Order: sequence, then structure tokens, then C-alpha cells
Amino acid sequence: MKILVVNAGSSSLKYQLFDMTDHSVLAKGICEKIGITPTSGSITHKRPGAENYTKETPVQDHISAINLVLNTLTDPELGVIGDVSEIAAVGHRFVHGGTKIKESGILNDDMIAYIESIIPINPLHGPASLKGYRACLQAMPNVPHVGVFDSAFYATMPEASYMYAVPYEWYEKYSIRRYGFHGTSHRYVSAEAAKLVGKPIEELKIITCHIGSGSSITAIKNGVAVDTSMGFTPQDGLPMGTRCGPIDPSIVTFMIRQGLSADEIDNILNKKSGLIGVSGVSSDAREVWAAVDQGNNRAKLAMDLVIHNARKLIGSYVAEMNGVDVIVFTAGLGENDKLVRQGIASNLEALGVKINEEVNMNAPRGSLVDLTAEGSKVKVYVIPTDEELMIAKDTERLAVEYYKK
Amino acid sequence: MKILVVNAGSSSLKYQLFDMTDHSVLAKGICEKIGITPTSGSITHKRPGAENYTKETPVQDHISAINLVLNTLTDPELGVIGDVSEIAAVGHRFVHGGTKIKESGILNDDMIAYIESIIPINPLHGPASLKGYRACLQAMPNVPHVGVFDSAFYATMPEASYMYAVPYEWYEKYSIRRYGFHGTSHRYVSAEAAKLVGKPIEELKIITCHIGSGSSITAIKNGVAVDTSMGFTPQDGLPMGTRCGPIDPSIVTFMIRQGLSADEIDNILNKKSGLIGVSGVSSDAREVWAAVDQGNNRAKLAMDLVIHNARKLIGSYVAEMNGVDVIVFTAGLGENDKLVRQGIASNLEALGVKINEEVNMNAPRGSLVDLTAEGSKVKVYVIPTDEELMIAKDTERLAVEYYKK
Repeated sequence: MKILVVNAGSSSLKYQLFDMTDHSVLAKGICEKIGITPTSGSITHKRPGAENYTKETPVQDHISAINLVLNTLTDPELGVIGDVSEIAAVGHRFVHGGTKIKESGILNDDMIAYIESIIPINPLHGPASLKGYRACLQAMPNVPHVGVFDSAFYATMPEASYMYAVPYEWYEKYSIRRYGFHGTSHRYVSAEAAKLVGKPIEELKIITCHIGSGSSITAIKNGVAVDTSMGFTPQDGLPMGTRCGPIDPSIVTFMIRQGLSADEIDNILNKKSGLIGVSGVSSDAREVWAAVDQGNNRAKLAMDLVIHNARKLIGSYVAEMNGVDVIVFTAGLGENDKLVRQGIASNLEALGVKINEEVNMNAPRGSLVDLTAEGSKVKVYVIPTDEELMIAKDTERLAVEYYKK
Repeated sequence: MKILVVNAGSSSLKYQLFDMTDHSVLAKGICEKIGITPTSGSITHKRPGAENYTKETPVQDHISAINLVLNTLTDPELGVIGDVSEIAAVGHRFVHGGTKIKESGILNDDMIAYIESIIPINPLHGPASLKGYRACLQAMPNVPHVGVFDSAFYATMPEASYMYAVPYEWYEKYSIRRYGFHGTSHRYVSAEAAKLVGKPIEELKIITCHIGSGSSITAIKNGVAVDTSMGFTPQDGLPMGTRCGPIDPSIVTFMIRQGLSADEIDNILNKKSGLIGVSGVSSDAREVWAAVDQGNNRAKLAMDLVIHNARKLIGSYVAEMNGVDVIVFTAGLGENDKLVRQGIASNLEALGVKINEEVNMNAPRGSLVDLTAEGSKVKVYVIPTDEELMIAKDTERLAVEYYKK
């Protein structure tokens, strides 16, 4: 079965075509600058063993984008399939499933209406994902379209993990609670970790650290997410490339009294905080580390804040689960930044964690690596994440059921 | 040496007179309803071994209040000293010492000017404490007046503990950072804990849990505070009687877009959140527990949120210090609420913590109790706090130096 995975942003559309017989990626790429100007637009298309193809071409809207993708996938020279009908199902990444969508599902009118209804709590991603879905549905009306939701992995969290101690009416009226995001990534790497340990995930306590330009840490007990660091929005939890992570809420009201608007503050806390806000150098950890090497104290502080807060979260989840068997690092920094991993996971013997620092410092970038030192009670792995494959697997499972009917 | 400790609020003034030869309290009490109406006011005056004395009498301002206190302390019937001149020094509790005041000190013009300058970040407590100080100075101009600052204990925290990952300019321009409060209480109980363990505090890792109507948890490594849960304001860290504790900062901007003002949100997050906000029942844990007994789910959730977040903080500080030797419970709930203590400290074996649940459930209220179970690596104590005695000790030390000169 061939499955197309689509991840639509407001001006971009990422795609990946899987052959599910061996989970291989036949082709993947991205349309960018969609609808920014009447003539803007581009596609980058990659196939294993072939040169990357990039073309600037006007892409007016998401419908033009998916048509461009499908034309490229079936192009005699660039393509990897003969006809669009070879695509058996489409998997769509959604960030937010609100309080009601608790698992992946074939998208139908009720689900779409619900996703529309929660745009107020998902103003950035909701409309873009819906545009991508509608464009794909129009282009491929006869196959199942499956929604895979980043927040769905957290539907199992206990109430004390997802509720904030604000007036209960805010929860009832505005659905203010912790949702959690990056769930597809945490679900993927935790399942891979259980395979590596060789135990059923139902018998393990796992902490997964997805540290990238966006970052979150999740506690998974017996296969079920029991807590996570991102909250009502992806702004909560950890300092990130441009996001603030945990702050005293009074800082927001204080800054409003200094004359900023709510929108200005949202913009600053989402786009001008974290690594870039503290260091003043960059939101890219590689550039921040380069500044550290040149003796930049604010750059050092920025990286320290990521490490410090990640350590604290790990400790808090060990307390919450009363133990941990496996810690996983994944995503951009988790897979590639040995200094971040070392900062987070060294000097943690009190939690039963001991990493082999030499292995860590010499680990190849973006590879599966066992960092566990001899004598460590807790296994520590680097596991490259693959959200698209996770989406493809969910889509395959639901498509198989769909075609059986 | 006899020392008067004063804790001034906006409409109240608490006092406690110590005989420092044996640290005994000669008398203590409170003036309330100061200046609320032209005729409002009262004093409650307590002496060991005597009946409490309460009188309604107009108290127009803090000067009237301290004069009423001094007249009562020297009253032929109610008094405990013959003359005001027996008071050798006055210790004043201040909540906030900003970034500059790092220890207790004899109050002088420079310090007072600095305290005035930081009223923007300490709008509630700053003006009240200054009123109390000025009234006492007028009434007792010839003795040293010592300021003891709740935030000063945190002057030693590493940068990664006190900085938020917001734009660095917010720190430079507005002094936005974690300050920490309740420091006098955490300092007192950590010193007492070290005595109980029989080791120098310089060799211990201690986590002190001050859980009351206001709550904070502090990590103390080698006698020095390395992190604490209250932040830019006392609103951060833990859900409390009426305060929200940690929330996604986006919740604030979201609620502003729903039409609330910054002041309304501050009021809600400070006065209508925490136990009262979640349970809808009360800010008093005793009443919330009573509702739990009657099957009230929101009351249960409210207590769970306190316990859940306190456990997470303990875990985060164990990670931060790479271990813990002693955990201390103190303040209203820490000293008296066995269910809160049990919720926080049971099922924490992964951190080396095991409490004797029977001892905990039968511990007398407000008493020093060793909760440590056999085989627990970590000592766990209930230690009644005594901020006034700590203030008196600091005041005595500085007064002795003062009189030597």
C-alpha cells in the first residue's frame, strides 16, 4: 500500500510518499511560499538515489500546491508512481485535536466541524491544516483521508497533569487545560525504545525528550502518556529556539502594564524569547554554541536555560512515575547536539542515570545510539524521530479497515 | 537583649517581643483594620500563661498602631516590659529586596530609597512594609532597625535558576527574574534540619517544602539556596490557597483577548485560583478536604493539583542537585495536613524517599516529627517554621555589632 503523508502550514505543504510494504520513502518534498504573492512559490522534491529537484513556480493556494505535488509524483522523469490512483490513502498531520479527538481517525464532516470549532485555541495551525486537507480531498476524493493529531497521545493523561489551578470555569468555558503537542514524535520514539529494551511498552516507564527548535518532554508509563511539558499552547514547558517555556504568569500582566498588547506579548514569547531572546545571537543552537565558544555569556546562559529546565522536567517526571527505565533523546538537538545531551543527562546518578560520555561525544549525528553507561539503572538512547512514518502507519491501519468494509 | 519583630501589612501590624537570652516570646499580637474607616481598628495581644486580650479601638494609621502596641507592651496590667527603652532593636520583615539586597541589614536611607525604587515590582508589600518601618522609627528613633528580606536567601541562586527565557532586555530594563520568597522560613527550617541530622549544613542537600496558604519549595545545596519555586512574584511555582502556580503564559494573553484586563487577571490568578478556583469550595485546605469526604470531585482535583505539583518540584530539585539528603515539611499544611504530606512523600522510593505512613498519619499538629521510614536514604521531617525567631536572631546579631561601635 502506498500512502501519502501531508503536513500543511499556512504557506507551505510538506509531503512524503511511503511504500508500506517496507516502510520505504519513495519521494518527499515541500512546496513553499504558497500564496505569499501572486507569483511566489516553489517545490523541492527528493527521491532516494536521485538528485534533488527544485523549481520556482507560482503556487497560488493549497489546491495548486497539492496538484503540483501530484504532478511531480507522477511525472515521467521526476515521478515515482505511474498514476495518482496508486495512492491508497492520505495521512494528514494535525497539531490540535482539542478535548474530543483522542486518536487518529478517518476525517469526516463531524471531525472537521469540531476542528473548525477549536480554531480559537489553535489559531495558527488549525486553519492551515484544514486548507491542506480540503485541497487533498478535492484532488483525491476517492481515498480515505486520515487525521493524525499531535495532541491525541495525551488524551490519557490524568486530570492532575492536564488541569491548571485556574478558575474551573476557564476550563469549562474556554477549554483551558494542558493539551500537549509533538505527540506523534513521542509516541514513535517511545515505541522504538521499548523494542530496543526488548520489553513490552506496557511494562516500562519512559521519558522522551524531543529537543529541537520546538521542544517538549513527555512521561510515558506503561505505554500511556501521563504528563508532558507543552501545555495549553506549544509555548509552555521548555525554553526553545524562540519560545520562552515556563515563566511566572505575572510577567505577562506586568509587561501589559508597561504598554504591550496581548498580541505583542504572544509574538515576543513565541518568536523572540528562548535561545534568541536570551542570547541575542540566534534561535539556532549551533550558532548559539559558536558564540559560547567565543566567550559570549548570554549565549552560555541561553543554552544553560534549555539544559537546566530539561533536567528539572526529567526529575519531575521521575517523581511523578516513581521511577524511569528509559530516557530517549530525539529531534534536532536531541539527535545532534552532544553538548545539550551531556548537559541534561550527566550528573544524574541520583535518578539512576549514567551516560557513557565518550559514546555521547562521538555519536554520529541523527543516528540511533545507546548512550547507557555500564552500571546505569536507566537506559539512555538517541532515537531519530520519524513523525511521518508514524502518521503513515496510523493511516495504513485505518485504510486497511476502510477497504475491508 | 529584648527584640521587637514587626511584620506590617497594608491594614495590619503583627508584632512579637523576644527575650533573646532564651529566645522566649514575651508577648505577641496583631493590630488589624488599620485605617480602613476612621473608627476601625483592633488589637489582639497574647502573653504566655495569660488570657488573650482583644480590644476594638480606632487605629487610624501605622503610627497609631505601633503606639498602641508599645502602650500595650508597657501597660501596668497587660505589659511585659516596664519601658519602651528596654527594646534594644526592632526587626522588620520585608518581602522583597530586589536584586541588590542580599542579606539582612540595619536599615538606612540608601536601603530605604532602594526599597522605594522597587515598588513597581513589589506593589503589594513594599508600601506597607515601609509604612510599618517609618512608624516604628518615629516611635523608637534611638535603636537599630533591621530589615530581614524574604527574597535575600535567594541571592545565591545560579543564573540558570533565576533567569527566565524571555528577552534579556526585560531583565535589564524591568528586573524581570525569579526572586523567590518565604526565604526566612526556608532558611530557618533548613538550619534546624541540619541540626537534626547532625551534619553541617554545608554538607547537605535539603529540599524545604513551605506549604501553607502561600506555598513554595526551595532547593538548598551546601547551605546555599540553588533554586526555589516562587518567581518574579509569589504567584509562581505551586498552586496555593488562592494562587494559580505554574500555568502556560499563553493563558494570560488568551484571557485578555476574551476581554479581561491585566489587573482583573492578576486579581483572578492571585485571589480566585488555586484551591478556591479549582474546588469552588474554599481556599482553606481543611474545608476542601471536608468537601472531598463528601465526594466533591473538584475538591479532590484541587488537592491533587497541590500534591502533584509539589511532587514534581521535589523531583526537579533532586535532578538539579543530583540528590537530596533531607526533605522538610513546614507551614500551615506542611505542619498540619497529613494527607498533603502523604500525597507528596509516599511512592517516592525512586528518589530514595520512604516515609513511615503510620507516624505521618498520627503526627501531632504543628510539632517536630521525624517521618523517615526505616531504610529510607532521605530523611524526612516536619519542622514547625518560626520566621519571627529567624528575624529576631538576625536583628540580634546586627544589633550586637551596632552597639559595639
